[in-house]
Amino acid sequence: MTAAAPIYGRVALIGLGLIASSMAHAMRAGGLAGHIAGHARTAETRAVALDIGICDSVHDTAAEAVAGADLVVLAVPVGAMGAVAAEIAPHLAPGATVTDVGSVKQAVIEAVGPHIPEGVHFVPGHPIAGTEHSGPRSGFATLFRNRWWLLTPLPGGDGDAVARLRRLVEAFGANVDEMDAPHHDLVLAVTSHTPHLIAYTMVGVADDLRRVTDSEVIKYSAAGFRDFTRIAASDPVMWRDVFLTNREATLDILGRFTEELFALQRAIRLGDGPHLHAYFTRTRAIRRGIIEAGQDTAAPDFGRVGAAKGQGD
Amino acid sequence: MTAAAPIYGRVALIGLGLIASSMAHAMRAGGLAGHIAGHARTAETRAVALDIGICDSVHDTAAEAVAGADLVVLAVPVGAMGAVAAEIAPHLAPGATVTDVGSVKQAVIEAVGPHIPEGVHFVPGHPIAGTEHSGPRSGFATLFRNRWWLLTPLPGGDGDAVARLRRLVEAFGANVDEMDAPHHDLVLAVTSHTPHLIAYTMVGVADDLRRVTDSEVIKYSAAGFRDFTRIAASDPVMWRDVFLTNREATLDILGRFTEELFALQRAIRLGDGPHLHAYFTRTRAIRRGIIEAGQDTAAPDFGRVGAAKGQGD
Repeated sequence: MTAAAPIYGRVALIGLGLIASSMAHAMRAGGLAGHIAGHARTAETRAVALDIGICDSVHDTAAEAVAGADLVVLAVPVGAMGAVAAEIAPHLAPGATVTDVGSVKQAVIEAVGPHIPEGVHFVPGHPIAGTEHSGPRSGFATLFRNRWWLLTPLPGGDGDAVARLRRLVEAFGANVDEMDAPHHDLVLAVTSHTPHLIAYTMVGVADDLRRVTDSEVIKYSAAGFRDFTRIAASDPVMWRDVFLTNREATLDILGRFTEELFALQRAIRLGDGPHLHAYFTRTRAIRRGIIEAGQDTAAPDFGRVGAAKGQGD
Repeated sequence: MTAAAPIYGRVALIGLGLIASSMAHAMRAGGLAGHIAGHARTAETRAVALDIGICDSVHDTAAEAVAGADLVVLAVPVGAMGAVAAEIAPHLAPGATVTDVGSVKQAVIEAVGPHIPEGVHFVPGHPIAGTEHSGPRSGFATLFRNRWWLLTPLPGGDGDAVARLRRLVEAFGANVDEMDAPHHDLVLAVTSHTPHLIAYTMVGVADDLRRVTDSEVIKYSAAGFRDFTRIAASDPVMWRDVFLTNREATLDILGRFTEELFALQRAIRLGDGPHLHAYFTRTRAIRRGIIEAGQDTAAPDFGRVGAAKGQGD
């Protein structure tokens, strides 16, 4: 990132979790905003934001935070977007752009869209970036580098507003794609929502099983299970809202998943080695594609370092 | 690891993949074996082993490799263990120990046990360590550090043989636990076998879906899916054999998994937010346990580094 003229004079971040705090760090690093105003629901988060200095001003209400902002970023759980939009609507500056970072797009458009006043531009968005950590202290400026930031502009929306937002997120180092909201929600059901649900389920099963102790699960997790626990450590409120609001696409992909799982389960029961071998061979190619596309490391075991006490001995 | 007197005078590695080559590196690093003999099924693997110098001698047959060995390590896919045991049995030295590194223990005991001659000690084992890479070039000396190495000694077996093998793997930096084979197979069904099957299934579903292209799956994989692809890139022959030989325990845990998944699916369909939130909160605790036990890194996103082109810019 190089220092440049600010792309927005005043940016308001509503919600100060992992994504918003990473945006704040990236905007500061690149000189991309003249002023960063912030609001978070809890006094505790607001105090942390002040303490670590990610915002130029921190406000007790979202309405105050958005006053005079050129860009308003809704970075709250998907289920809270509608109420926030209703609250800020009367305070939005004419010509401002409102965007969001929700993992679901159709539900956000339905919840937020009706509140956006004439003359304000709503450009829904979703950065495909994150870690299993949450809260204002978890953000960092490089979170979005070489990650994809999807925009789902509304039909008939303002092209200039989209282009300006695009410049901002590209300045974060992100790649931008545009698509319609229903397709976004289906793609994310495959690459994110269903994998998360499955990981949560597997960790829950392990935790529940009387015949295998939690201590055994923890000690022997390096055999594969621990990768699931990272995913299943993500923010529960955010994920509850994702499943409640991307219900149809998630249930659709879950149906496909259980169908395939039953076919493999049947192959195991019948001892059908060739079926299993063919399936397990095919899935290797997708991994190669992800590494070639620069979306993951080729290092064994993700190049985990310092994973274990004494590993650096 | 510190240099010490060799624990075994001559070690024969049958199969020269990730685990055996890592054992070879660790034995060399620690001066733990007087001579390392190796055998692999294919001429290509044998040539690589000679080329990279992980063995002192490489043999065309397993029978030649085990001659005079104090310790024989069966490091072939679980489905190949019985045939290898039958081949080497007449050539095993009296007093030798035979161990294996298979991910399933009951099936290996049934396949190998009957071939072991009087006066030779069979100590089944399983290092809970690995990466998604395979083959002789993928091994490294520190693979076993702070990982668990499970032994499932047979009732009435030789205590000294177990203790000596234990000293070897502890010298690799591994922690040792002993348990009976059926319990091992159940624990691994939870921590490894079922998670792998689920990951393979999810990757297969994504690959199959006509409405979402492979290119989209690859580009947007950072949202969670890419962790599954790492697991689903593991050796297909090894995993085919795991499922064929640990059938009962895997089907048992899979049944539990689908039951839980259906309950969560139902909660999504009914819009039961409290159920989802409670479930997703509970699973966070297991992750904390794994990090506290030193079995994974607390760094966000596994501390992935250099994952993406340009990320170091």
